[in-house]
Order: sequence, then structure tokens, then C-alpha cells
Amino acid sequence: MSVIGKNITRVDALEKANGTASFCDDIYFRNMVYGRMVHSPHAHARIMNIDTSAARALPGVRAVLTAKDIPDNSNLGEEHGWMLADKEVCYIGDPVAVVAADSEAIAAEAVKLVKVDYEVLPGVFYLEDALREGAPLACPDTDSNLLMDLHSVRGDVEDDFAKADLIVSETFHFPHIFQGYLEPNSATATFINGELTVYCGSQAWHRLKKDIAKRCNLPLNKVILRPMTMGGAFGGKSEQITPIIAALLAMETHRPAKFTRTREEEFYDSHPSVEMIVKVTMAVDKEGHFLSRKTEYLGDVGAYGVAGTWVLGVASYRADTTYKFNSVEVSTKGVRLNRTPTAAYRGYGNPQAHFALESMIDILAEKLGMDPTELRLKNYIEPNSISIHGYHISSCGLPECMNRAKELINWDKMRGSSHRYGHGVGCASLVHAAGSRAGDPEFPGDSALLQCDMDGQLTVFTGEAEFGQGAKTVMAQVVAEEFGVDPKSVRVIMGDTQHTPFATGTHGSKLTTILANALLAACTEAKKEILDSIILITGSGRLTIEQGKILNYRGDVLMTLEEALHKVCLKRSGAPIIAMGEYRPAAVMLDTTGYGNLAPTYPFGVQAAEVEVDVETGRIHVKKIVSVHDSGTVFNRQMAEGEVYGGVTQAFGFTTMEQLAINNQGLLHGGTFLEYKMPTMLDIPELVADFVETCDPHGPYGAKSLGEPPIVSVLPAIANAVYHAIGLRLTDAPFTPQKVLKAIKEPKAKEGRSK
Amino acid sequence: MSVIGKNITRVDALEKANGTASFCDDIYFRNMVYGRMVHSPHAHARIMNIDTSAARALPGVRAVLTAKDIPDNSNLGEEHGWMLADKEVCYIGDPVAVVAADSEAIAAEAVKLVKVDYEVLPGVFYLEDALREGAPLACPDTDSNLLMDLHSVRGDVEDDFAKADLIVSETFHFPHIFQGYLEPNSATATFINGELTVYCGSQAWHRLKKDIAKRCNLPLNKVILRPMTMGGAFGGKSEQITPIIAALLAMETHRPAKFTRTREEEFYDSHPSVEMIVKVTMAVDKEGHFLSRKTEYLGDVGAYGVAGTWVLGVASYRADTTYKFNSVEVSTKGVRLNRTPTAAYRGYGNPQAHFALESMIDILAEKLGMDPTELRLKNYIEPNSISIHGYHISSCGLPECMNRAKELINWDKMRGSSHRYGHGVGCASLVHAAGSRAGDPEFPGDSALLQCDMDGQLTVFTGEAEFGQGAKTVMAQVVAEEFGVDPKSVRVIMGDTQHTPFATGTHGSKLTTILANALLAACTEAKKEILDSIILITGSGRLTIEQGKILNYRGDVLMTLEEALHKVCLKRSGAPIIAMGEYRPAAVMLDTTGYGNLAPTYPFGVQAAEVEVDVETGRIHVKKIVSVHDSGTVFNRQMAEGEVYGGVTQAFGFTTMEQLAINNQGLLHGGTFLEYKMPTMLDIPELVADFVETCDPHGPYGAKSLGEPPIVSVLPAIANAVYHAIGLRLTDAPFTPQKVLKAIKEPKAKEGRSK
Repeated sequence: MSVIGKNITRVDALEKANGTASFCDDIYFRNMVYGRMVHSPHAHARIMNIDTSAARALPGVRAVLTAKDIPDNSNLGEEHGWMLADKEVCYIGDPVAVVAADSEAIAAEAVKLVKVDYEVLPGVFYLEDALREGAPLACPDTDSNLLMDLHSVRGDVEDDFAKADLIVSETFHFPHIFQGYLEPNSATATFINGELTVYCGSQAWHRLKKDIAKRCNLPLNKVILRPMTMGGAFGGKSEQITPIIAALLAMETHRPAKFTRTREEEFYDSHPSVEMIVKVTMAVDKEGHFLSRKTEYLGDVGAYGVAGTWVLGVASYRADTTYKFNSVEVSTKGVRLNRTPTAAYRGYGNPQAHFALESMIDILAEKLGMDPTELRLKNYIEPNSISIHGYHISSCGLPECMNRAKELINWDKMRGSSHRYGHGVGCASLVHAAGSRAGDPEFPGDSALLQCDMDGQLTVFTGEAEFGQGAKTVMAQVVAEEFGVDPKSVRVIMGDTQHTPFATGTHGSKLTTILANALLAACTEAKKEILDSIILITGSGRLTIEQGKILNYRGDVLMTLEEALHKVCLKRSGAPIIAMGEYRPAAVMLDTTGYGNLAPTYPFGVQAAEVEVDVETGRIHVKKIVSVHDSGTVFNRQMAEGEVYGGVTQAFGFTTMEQLAINNQGLLHGGTFLEYKMPTMLDIPELVADFVETCDPHGPYGAKSLGEPPIVSVLPAIANAVYHAIGLRLTDAPFTPQKVLKAIKEPKAKEGRSK
Repeated sequence: MSVIGKNITRVDALEKANGTASFCDDIYFRNMVYGRMVHSPHAHARIMNIDTSAARALPGVRAVLTAKDIPDNSNLGEEHGWMLADKEVCYIGDPVAVVAADSEAIAAEAVKLVKVDYEVLPGVFYLEDALREGAPLACPDTDSNLLMDLHSVRGDVEDDFAKADLIVSETFHFPHIFQGYLEPNSATATFINGELTVYCGSQAWHRLKKDIAKRCNLPLNKVILRPMTMGGAFGGKSEQITPIIAALLAMETHRPAKFTRTREEEFYDSHPSVEMIVKVTMAVDKEGHFLSRKTEYLGDVGAYGVAGTWVLGVASYRADTTYKFNSVEVSTKGVRLNRTPTAAYRGYGNPQAHFALESMIDILAEKLGMDPTELRLKNYIEPNSISIHGYHISSCGLPECMNRAKELINWDKMRGSSHRYGHGVGCASLVHAAGSRAGDPEFPGDSALLQCDMDGQLTVFTGEAEFGQGAKTVMAQVVAEEFGVDPKSVRVIMGDTQHTPFATGTHGSKLTTILANALLAACTEAKKEILDSIILITGSGRLTIEQGKILNYRGDVLMTLEEALHKVCLKRSGAPIIAMGEYRPAAVMLDTTGYGNLAPTYPFGVQAAEVEVDVETGRIHVKKIVSVHDSGTVFNRQMAEGEVYGGVTQAFGFTTMEQLAINNQGLLHGGTFLEYKMPTMLDIPELVADFVETCDPHGPYGAKSLGEPPIVSVLPAIANAVYHAIGLRLTDAPFTPQKVLKAIKEPKAKEGRSK
């Protein structure tokens, strides 16, 4: 292959590097109004009255919207909730009203003039308190804080536990984490001739279109979304209120409307990852074969659900697939708290699940007297097998990943003679799914259009999203490979709902697998149409397209692709060829017990960390993180390494420093990047990315995916390394110096987490 | 038909009425720079030096471009010339440099700091002077002011003149006219990742794309044009420098760049209509049969050509087609003057030609003692005949138009017993072509795409332009008729070069004929694809789409079109159906003598005017203008009437008041709408529009076209009415009170035109 597998510079690299990219907030229209939100200062309160008259009277104010002004105020995502609160506010930051004014300054002034009378109510802030008898209800019109209660058994768990030689139990805590995208949510909307156009960013364009149409009471076909360049998402831009608010303001004022959120708003009123307490109990035989595992998840869905229960659903099953189990049992409870609703964050619950499982494996290995890598290798799932949840494992390079990771982290030496107190290495395995059948049950796969213009331009149209992850480059590589052209010459239009096929949204590490397969089909169709036409024009048969040229069966160059497209489109009176390709993976929607082959391919990997722990300060110095992935064929080594570095860095952040901590009134400990500590270049350890290239029969050119895997198992790898270093089992992330020091000094106290 | 022929409100009416339309200047980007031009204050001068250092040094100035900074400084349109002058400036307003700055104010300041040293040269300003011996050359590197010299003879002119019973000659003058679009040219460009995107207006999107790519030295496929709503064009936005300048500034500064022209710039440096002196000599027999006609055109192409010679080409032949001639001879000279280059204006030289021919017919009628309408009826071309220039007349309702016009203007009474001095009626016939084979010789017709989305949306994509003429509504009507849906629900995307088929541009009254035919083909294809898929899904055969529903052969409604599209697209994994339709008219490129069937259909019409002339003041009070058109089937009566009112009003303007008059140094008599007098609502006479609906076999649903015809023969109709009123033959437009009064007082002086 001439393009796939090569180091291709991102097709959008230049715009990021030279600052010409036009991000969501970079577009303006004449006579535009600016939106600003009124948020609740209380974690839980009854709204007695909202008086907008003073705000409305301020010169330059064009609209003040409260819940009653919105055609459909329903919550995004799961169920039960609202966009603007009208009965109760249920977390600090809960939106109550929105103003639109001629300038940002007037809008900010008007926000202060909206007078909301609250009656403060008691709140519930911590997972452990949510289901306690007498706990306040976090949300009105509910009779319990329990929103989700899942229980599933696969195999004969009781029998496996009865047969077990060793049973071990441990509990782990994973905190709220902010996705940390650098670009705050922003959207600009126009409402012209009954058509609403919104310039914004999204991870799920066609779902957002539905979300907007519903809440603005417009037919679906009257909503058009125009993608701007996005400054990160990481799951945090899957369920978005911002474009809806901009749309409502444009419709209300009949003027273009911009709504850009402040950084503080993003912290207080975003959709962070799901906080979880995970209790794992494992049963193994004396040789170390995994027999069974029982897992209990307790997760925070926020004041009202957005995507928290779906995240808990993924956590409940996904991690079981790395290994062969006889049986598993899971009990998952999703509870409401007076905190911001939770939703997707890269990994979608899988890091939480792996933290618990992969820490537990090290605990078992010690008790069995085995090297933890050996215990893993003994239990790894094998290619061409079906996992306990029904996943069809068509390729698996776990043993090769483990061996490579051991080599790169210098495992044998570090675990052997070189070991010294305070210095350790640890590892953890991971599995993820590439393109799960989540989302629209009637919608199995994806489609792509390839437009071939008279000027020679090849343009991909897909309803999926580019939010920095590099999908445009991957798709350009597919077309470049198929036509033998420069990937930089291929244009990739993603998400513009006027011009792209319906798609369910970009999540679950799906694009390289599912969309690229659809695009491959479109390329095949386009090449056929072009060649059929050139055969008619030239009279030559048996033509092929190679290296951007049309060749006959002897290999003679008849013309360039550009010349061919000019001729072909001229014969169509200027119309481009637009070829459609689709891909429907053999995956299925899971049954009610969570069983079924949910994705076409499954990427695997092993991550390992080397740490030094300063027992005087409690500081964990992570020296090196190794991340070895079986993502099938690697499309673009340079971009793949970037994907790994990014994911590992995020995981390093929530392992060692990040947490959206609140006080006992539900107030965040700061809502800026000064107070919310994310790793900077100075914090980041040495990162090593490597790949074991299996060739998956279901992946395009054998590729699986890499979007989420790098974030999955860094946390347990570091936890296991710390145990190796100082014999301390950390179970409460993040592992801040304070917590580590406390655990060193009071080993018994480790189960109670600091609040 | 349920939609075609009905009064459908324009699909873009609301945005125009409520002010939400986003015009070219209404878009902004963060960090945008603003362009402003330096123009020549001299009509003719040598550029000795351009010093941009002071301008460049002004804080906030980001670029100053002169000719040498531009990759390709070549002229738009015909040949010989430039975008920015570097050797000589050749008219007042000739662009010399362009600056880009952080604000409009800084840009305006910087313009003043660009120091250009000129050596003033003698100029040539009037048609009569251009070819005089010793006249200054208007343009450098030329050896004559004669740019175009056409001579063509068809039939035996000498023989016909020898056989004639009556030979009459007269000379007419038609002035420079400004197109009078209300929105000045404006464009905003971004240059991101090597791709240039320009938000602007145009009448010829894909030609403009070529124009920009060439001058910015970019491959064609790196230029994307995004249409904004346009505030009029009337031919004046066919050849545009504005988007090219915005593009160059964006590329130079690597920032978004806006270039909006001032009203004054539009007057001084636009492309007005071609000033012409037309001498007609006609030979007829004693029964009034037209035997032959000799015509000499002398026209001003401006300092360097843009489209002036093409306009003169149309003037040279088009008008001959209204009547049966044995022979015709034409001699056309296009000359350079030190005036702004000339180009297209609605009618494209045809009003000039008709002014001369249709005035001459009234002169002949008087000499023959015939009613002028009778003389016309005797000579009208007939349906299913071939004109002297080879046009295939597939339909012609001229006699019916004449009879209806006579009725509406009360001809018989006004010309008979009711006639009193000072009060008169006159008429004139007209012919035009609907979609001539001008432009790209390799490109015969047009194509359209119809996209049918999963949400039920039907969207038309065409590379042609909507600039206020109503093409979007016409195309929406075609789709609405074919699918039985509301025209307002159909989206029509015109000109966005990323998404539309190549098209040669919107001129020559072509869209309703050519594009609608292509779109009809696309509709047929789309319906077939949808029904084929629904047949597979439902198992029902022989389905049809009527009134937005899918019916089986018994007429049972199986589902709505929206439901059907949801099902069909779901089967394609979300991809829309995109059907292509094309139309290649049987028209040909004219041969070198101007012979050939240049268009698929030919619209005809008769226009009549009633005037009262105040012989004391010279003021012509036009009381009523009747305009009766054979445009085939009328798609939309309300819009057709609007098209007629607009065209007639423009013609009324250049008949009675409008003229870009210059002094003997080439300086305009004012460059604002205060000084350039266009008719307002208070000036406009009673307007009556009516239609004779022939059904042309080549037109979609029998339609021909109406874009230009209403402007063609108002001028001679008024001239003829004035003659009827007071016996004065006016030959020098516009017929201002001053000129009329002078002609009344000095009848012999009428041939010399006032300057």
C-alpha cells in the first residue's frame, strides 16, 4: 500500500499550525445578538419566581428566555430533566434563563438583572449518600435517587465461586473528570426563510440536528448544521445545549445569534465523566485461571440523566472481554446527585471498569505468587473465539502486546534483580470495541459519498465528525490509496447536515473501522463509474486507476485522473459523479442481558508504567508510560502515536491530579484551568507508543481502531506500579500526594475516600 | 398542473421582506482584514512610480498590493488589460493598488498614503472621436482604438436594395447605463489549509472560480465559492474583480479578508452597458415587405475590453429574428475609449439593436402610409420557420402579442379619432433567445442534481445563480410539480461550487428553459430510484408519486414521500438519493458569420407606450407601458409580472433619464444615486403585463423565458409614441426634457447628440 500505513501529515495540520482555522466562535454576522446564560447559584433549590422585566428593559437586550418560552424544554440524552430549570434547580450551574443582547457586555449586564427567587433545599452530593434512607431527593418529581438498576448474570456464577481456590474482593473509586477540551462550546445561528442554520461543533451532527429540531419545534428538514473547526471534544460535545440555545435566540430575535460559553460555565455546567465506586470480587483456581467475577458499580448520573446510565452500561460489560471467564455477574446502580449531569468522556466507562479489573488481577497474581503478566497471558481471550458477552473476536494480539510492553518497560529487569523500594513497574491490559451498535437501533452502519468533480477534485461526504481526532486524514488516506492521489488533495466534508448522509454520531472509536469501510465501497463504485465512462469515450477496455492515472491492460497511461474526470463530467453536462458506499457490520444490538456481538472488531492493548514514589511527600513520579496497541493495521503511524500520546496523557492526568471535587454544598473547588489541574508538557512522563499489527478481516485494510484504547488502562498500570514500588494498593483516584501520603501513614484508611 | 402556472410566492420572499437575508457584506470572521482600493484620478496617464511605503508603515495595515504583487494580473473577460494598472491608467477609476488593514477606517487612511506619480496623457472620450485620425490611443501597447471589426452579409443585399421601392436610413444613439444593482460588490475570503473560500455573489459561479484560480495561481479545485444572498446584478456581476481582490488579500495576509466596494467605486469602476451609435438603412417594397437591412454599429468597449465586444456581437444579429428578411448586412466596430470597460447589462445589446430597428419600422410605416402595427404583422416571422441567421423558431406568438398589446394600449382609438397633439401611443416588437450557446464551446447545456434526504428534504443543486430574478422559485416549482409537494419545502442550492455541477453562468435568459429541463430529468430519475427501492421494500409494483404520496396502481396511498425516503435511505445506511439530470439543447455554437440555431427557444413580445409630451418643457410624461410576452408557458404569473415590471422600469429609466454622462476629461457627472437618476416609485408610469402562452416543444412544460425580454423594446415604443404625439423622431437616448426641448426647437439638430 502506498498511503495506508505511511506517515501522512494531517490534512488539517496547516490550519492548526498557522492559526487560520475558523473555530466555532470565529464567525460573525451583521446585526448579530449575543447570548448569555443565567445559572443557579444553589445546588438544590425551588424556583419561586423569575422576574425578567429589568433585564428586558435594559437597552440593547433583544430577548430573555426562560423555560416557558421554549417550545420543547426537554432534557438532552436519557430522560427526565430540562434545558432551563423552571421548578427546581438541581446543581450549581443549572441553567435558568438566557438573554440575547446587541453586545456581549450588554448580555452580561442583563444576566445580572434577571431576578430569581429561590427557596434553598437540602441536597445530596456523594455517591455513598444517594441511596441512604432519608436522603434528600436530588431531582423533583422522582421518588428515589436510583435512576438505573442493572443486574446481569452470565454462566453459573455460584458454581464457579464454589469451585474457586481463591476469592478476592476490592473496591475502587474513580472521580468526576472534565473532558478538558480547550475550545468552549460555541454556536452561531441564523433563522432565514424558516430555515435554521447553526454554525457550531458537534460529535454527533445528525443527532444534534434532531435535538435542535425537537426543541425549536421545527421539522427536521428545516435545520441545517454547518461544522466549524473544533478545538477538542473527548466525548464532551456529544450532548450539547449550546447550539440549541443559539438556535432559540435566533428564532426569537430574527437576528443571527451567537452563544459562546465561558470557561467557568464549561466547568460548572458541562457533562463530566461518571464518578464510580466499583467493587470487584474474583474467583480463580489455583493455577490462576479466571473462573468468575462479580462486579458492583455505583455511578453518578448527575442531577438528571444525560448519558450517565449509558456510560454505566458500557462499564458493566466491556472489560470482561479481555479474558476468558466461565461466568460473570454485574450489578450496576446509577444514582442522582445534586451535581452536573454526567455523560461521555473518551473511554465511556471503560477506564473505570479497567481500573478495578486490572488492579484486581495484580492483587490476585500476588496472592497466587505469579508474575502479573504471566497471569494475564494465561487468561487472555483468543482470536476466533466468542467472549462471554457474545463478542466475536476476529483478531487479538494481546500476547504480542504484552511481550512488547514488557520489553519496552524493561519488565524482567525491573521486576527482578534491579528492583528497589520506591521504584516499580506495573502493567494492565485493555479491550475496547470499534464501532459498537449503540445509538439508533434501526441504524446498523454508516454510509459515505464520494464526489468526483469536473475539476478533478475528489470530495468525501460523511455525516460523522472531525473534532481533532484525525478522521479527515484517515478518510483522505483511503481515497488517496484507492486512486493513487495525494491525500492532501482529497477534501473531506464531515457533518454538514445539508450535504452529508445521516449518521449516528462519532463515538465508540468507530470511524476508522466503520466509516472507512463505507468509504472504500464508495471508492470502488466511483472508480467503476469513471472507468465505465472512459471506456465509452476512448473505446479502450479493461482500464484501471493507479497513481492518479488511467491505465489500459498493458499499463499504458491513457490520461490523468483529472483529465478523465473533466471528460466524464463534460459528458454529464458538468455534473459530478457522486458514488455512494455503505457498510453494515455484522454486529447486533445487545439483548436485554447485554449479550451480542456489538461491534465488527475489537482493539486490544497493554499499557505499562514505571514509577518512583517519594514516600516522604506522597508524590508519584511517573517516569515512563508504555502503550502497545493491537489496533489492526495502523493507517498512519504518526497520527496513531499522537492518538496514543493524547489518550495516555489524559489518563495520566486523571490518575495523578485531575478531579472535579466539590465541597459539601455541591460547590466546585474552582472552575478554571488554574484550579482544575491538567497535565502540561512539564508534567508529562516519557511516553512510548508501539503497535502490534494484526490484520482484522472485518477492518478496512485490516484496521481496527485507536480512538479510545490509549486512555483505558493507564490508571491501573500506574496503580500496579505503585504497588510494586512501595507495596501500597491505591484504589481511590486521583493518586494525589495528599492521598498517597495518607495511605502510607494510615494503611487501613485507604478504603474511605477523601471528599 | 398543480404548481406550474400558479401564483407561487417566491421561496425567498420572507428573507427579503423581514431583513434576515444574509447579503455579501453581512458575514464576518475573527481577525478579518478590510480591503480598500486606490483608483486613478486621471482618465489617461502614465504611471511613473507607486510608493506604498507610507501606507505599509501605517499601524494596522497588513498588506498593500500593486500589479507586481499579483500572480496573474490579467484582465477579466475578453483580452488585453489588467486588474491593477502598472503601466498606464486608462480611465478615471482604473484600479492601481489595494490595501488591507485591521479596520475599514485604517484601510481608508492607508489608501490616501499610497503615492502614485502620474504623467497625464491625452485621452479619447467619445465614440465619434475614437477612430479619427490622430486620436490618442486609449490603451498602451495598441496601434489602434479599433478592437472589434465585424462584417457579415446574409442573402443578396445589393439585389434587394436594387429591387426596393423605398429605402430609408436613420442613426440612433444609446448611452452608457449603469446596471443599478442596489448591493455594491462585496466579497469575504478565507485561505485555510491551502483552500481558498470566497463568500460573495456572482452571476457565473464556476467561471468566477476559474477567474479567481487563475489570478491567485491556485489549482481550480482549491477554490470554493459560497453564495450569499445577492441584491441585484442585471449583468453587472458577470465579470467581477471584487472576489479576486478579497481572495488575494486573504492569501497575502493569511487572515480572512473582506472587500466591499463603495457606491462611488461602483459608478466609476463598474462595467456599464455598451454605448452605441447605430445606423440602420432599410429596403422595403411598396406593400411594405421587408427586403433587406444594413446596420452599422459603433460601440464603446471601454479602455480595455471586458465583455463589450460580445455585447456588440449580440446586438449585431439578434434583432433580425423578429421579422422575415431576404437579406441583411451588418458592420460593427468596437472601439476603445478612456472610459470604464463595458460589459453585460440585461438585454446584452439587444435593446440598442431594437431601438434602431423598431424606430425605423415606424419611420417606414409612415412613409408607406401604413399603421405601424400592420407593417409589423405583415413581416413577423412564423412558427416552425428558420430565421435569416439560422434560428429555429419552434413557437412564435407575435401576432397574438401585438393584438393584445393594441387592445391594452387602446391602440385603435388612440391612433384614430381620439388622437390629439401631444398625446400618442407607440409600439415595438421584440425577440430574444432563451439560453444561447455562448460561453464555453465545449459545454452545450446544463445539469442539475436532486438530493432526496432521509428526513424527506428534496434539495436541488445547480451551478447557476440566483441574483434576485427568482430562479430558486422556478426550480422549486419544478420539483414541487413533479413530486406534488409544497414549493416552499424544496431547497434550492445555487452556485456553491463545492456542491454544485459545473455551469457556464446565468445569462441569456437561460435558466427556465435550460436548467429546468435538466432538473426535470433529475426529478424523473429520482422518482424512479425511490420507487424502485420502495417496490423492493413493499413488494408492491407499479407505484407512482403524486401529491407527496406513494400510490399503488389502484390509487391506494401506501405511505407519504417522507416516509418513503426514510425507508429508502435507511436501506442505504443513511445516504441520500442523489439523482442527476442533464439537458443538451439542439442549439449550436454560431459559425464565424453568426449563423446557427443558437438557442433552444426564442421568446417574443410586443411593448407599447402611451405618452403625453409637454412641448413647453420638453418633458415626456409616460402614462402607461404595456408589455405582452410570448414566453411560452408562464411558470408563475406573479413572478412573471414582477420580471416584466422590473425590466420595463429599467428601460423606462434609460429611455427618459439615465445616463453615465462624462465631461470632456472623462469625469463622470456624479457617482451617486443622487446624481445618477434612476426611476423611483413616483416616476414609474402605469405598467401592464400580459402573456400570450404558446407552448414551446423545447421548453419545460412549454416554457421559454422572460429574464431579458421586458427590457428590450420599451425605448422604441416610447420613441414611437412621442413621434405619434408630436411628430418628433427622437434618436438620442435618454430623452431628457433638455434634449426633447432642443429637438422641438431645432429639429435639424437632432442628429448631433449632446455630450
